[in-house]
Amino acid sequence: MRLREKLSMIRPVILSGGSGTRLWPMSRSERPKQLLSLTDSETMLQLTARRTMTRPGYASPIVVANAAHAGEIERQLGQIGIIDAEIVLEPAARNTAPAIALAALAADPADMLLVMPSDHVIENVDAFMAAVAAAIPLCAQGWFATFGITPDAPETGYGYIRRGEELAPGVNRVERFVEKPDVETARSYLASGDYSWNGGIFLFTAGSYLGALGRLEPAMLAAATEGMGKARREGGLIYPDALAFGASPSESVDYAVMEKVDRVAVVPVNMGWSDLGSWDALHAIAPRDAANNARHGEVIAIDTSGCLLRTDGPLMAAVGIKDLIVIATGDAVLILPRGSSQDVKRAIEALKREGHITLDRFTAVKAALEG
Amino acid sequence: MRLREKLSMIRPVILSGGSGTRLWPMSRSERPKQLLSLTDSETMLQLTARRTMTRPGYASPIVVANAAHAGEIERQLGQIGIIDAEIVLEPAARNTAPAIALAALAADPADMLLVMPSDHVIENVDAFMAAVAAAIPLCAQGWFATFGITPDAPETGYGYIRRGEELAPGVNRVERFVEKPDVETARSYLASGDYSWNGGIFLFTAGSYLGALGRLEPAMLAAATEGMGKARREGGLIYPDALAFGASPSESVDYAVMEKVDRVAVVPVNMGWSDLGSWDALHAIAPRDAANNARHGEVIAIDTSGCLLRTDGPLMAAVGIKDLIVIATGDAVLILPRGSSQDVKRAIEALKREGHITLDRFTAVKAALEG
Repeated sequence: MRLREKLSMIRPVILSGGSGTRLWPMSRSERPKQLLSLTDSETMLQLTARRTMTRPGYASPIVVANAAHAGEIERQLGQIGIIDAEIVLEPAARNTAPAIALAALAADPADMLLVMPSDHVIENVDAFMAAVAAAIPLCAQGWFATFGITPDAPETGYGYIRRGEELAPGVNRVERFVEKPDVETARSYLASGDYSWNGGIFLFTAGSYLGALGRLEPAMLAAATEGMGKARREGGLIYPDALAFGASPSESVDYAVMEKVDRVAVVPVNMGWSDLGSWDALHAIAPRDAANNARHGEVIAIDTSGCLLRTDGPLMAAVGIKDLIVIATGDAVLILPRGSSQDVKRAIEALKREGHITLDRFTAVKAALEG
Repeated sequence: MRLREKLSMIRPVILSGGSGTRLWPMSRSERPKQLLSLTDSETMLQLTARRTMTRPGYASPIVVANAAHAGEIERQLGQIGIIDAEIVLEPAARNTAPAIALAALAADPADMLLVMPSDHVIENVDAFMAAVAAAIPLCAQGWFATFGITPDAPETGYGYIRRGEELAPGVNRVERFVEKPDVETARSYLASGDYSWNGGIFLFTAGSYLGALGRLEPAMLAAATEGMGKARREGGLIYPDALAFGASPSESVDYAVMEKVDRVAVVPVNMGWSDLGSWDALHAIAPRDAANNARHGEVIAIDTSGCLLRTDGPLMAAVGIKDLIVIATGDAVLILPRGSSQDVKRAIEALKREGHITLDRFTAVKAALEG
């Protein structure tokens, strides 16, 4: 393969390590958010892999995941016709920076890595692809790019990026990353028009990333390198050495790399993005009936409006209710008002406190809590 | 046994034929309301049988039930130490008048029958027993007695009884039975103080009942008599002949007998009665926490008030909800506002209409609907 071709090849890196307890009781550690069908008949992982699979210039993906999900991931990718993915199975969770290091080591140093969480919604894939295309020339020169989501509300749950000078059409230098703000600060960011949300999607070459790690996080690079050097391979499955990789510091790519390197660009993009971080977020993007109900599964709704009604098994019958979230699985039911779905964590804390997780039949909850 | 002793013996007749779809999804035809633990760790049937089991002058009960429940009824009675009940298993449901005929034929004609639904709550059993005692002298002379529940609201779901002259201390002649009234009429009944609810609890001798049937419903008496004559017995279980009993007209004891005989007395009684005809009724009588929640099963309630939260299996987590009824079983979840639990029937109608009952996994619902 000639150098020019190699430079133009983009390898999607799909990070599938999350456990997603915010969507309890659907999401559990043995079946986290990315492996669920939430917005579509296809799972979040399948939708993520589909975004690039038929695009010219894109190679097969590298998926970094928990070893417990290997079979399910292979199955889900196979279902949509992806049989040449490399699936790197983390022997332990060490956050995103080491996970991306494993992917970078599985790729060619010249490969451009498009790093994507496996559980985000992107409604306008063309806008996303155009944003990636805009960043490629800079990244080929060693820049690190992040994709800045156009905010539409003063969210306090995301990091923000202040955009600086324009480096190329539609691409700005990152002036600074800012931590999750309070609501007043978030409002001022929104009003200024100078900020984007940090959506956790990145573009850089494998070589740039590994080079930066060598300078900034040498122990992390050493652990990932030794882990991959001693990895066991089974077809597309790659099992890094547990002892070696386990020695890696645990850190996010934002903190370990993006906030520390010099040449960081942001590509602002309005692409119908959602991280589906709560049941409310799912209601907001789900297809809804004339009464503003989003329904999934065997649901009967009578005189019911503004509700998210989801079941993955039990028959659900709602009569005369309004603006509620009701989620049912075979072994758990969650009920809370719309607009308060961040309170799921309070339910999980109470379950933990009241000892339900010690009961055998709640092993799934236990797993979710510990996942 | 001497005649005097026989005259003073009361045989409880417990009618257990109901299917209780108003408490769907807990109640199903294979496990109707009377076989559930709703107000206590004991089931409604057990609580009903317990009312008379240690009282002097009361013999062992006769239970009239659906043959499908024979084993469960024997098991539940055995659990509370009743091993000498006679259990008459109806080969087909023909409403209460034929069911009581079977019981009357299983008893001695001189026995006094205390007919009780198997699924009502009576909180003050002493008051109930005192009311029964007040009616015994008249019933020994051939009167039919009904127990009139003191109304505390203008209920439109019950029949009413207008009380006439006093026949004995605390016992009145029935001036007339009136059908379920509209709410205006119910209010006027409540205001007048002359009306009681017809709670479906009766006292008369077996002989009086069979005699009345012979005059008023000869075909019914013939069917019951032939059914019992050809009955198969297995220990305490009595299986009337299906062909013979199946020929019986189907009618309620109120319509067939009580509203037509001359000598009918009502004993007004205030005994903490409820027919548990809805989830709201259960909330009203259930023990409640400081936030007015009635909880049953593995339930976590956070910032939640005024709710009925019941599960017989799945873990239930409620956060920030108010005045709702949430009922979960392993295969169904019902959610509706408190105060509207009569709307359960609308959910069941919708299930039927939308064809859920044809699916295998909803056979239990199907059974409930057809029960």
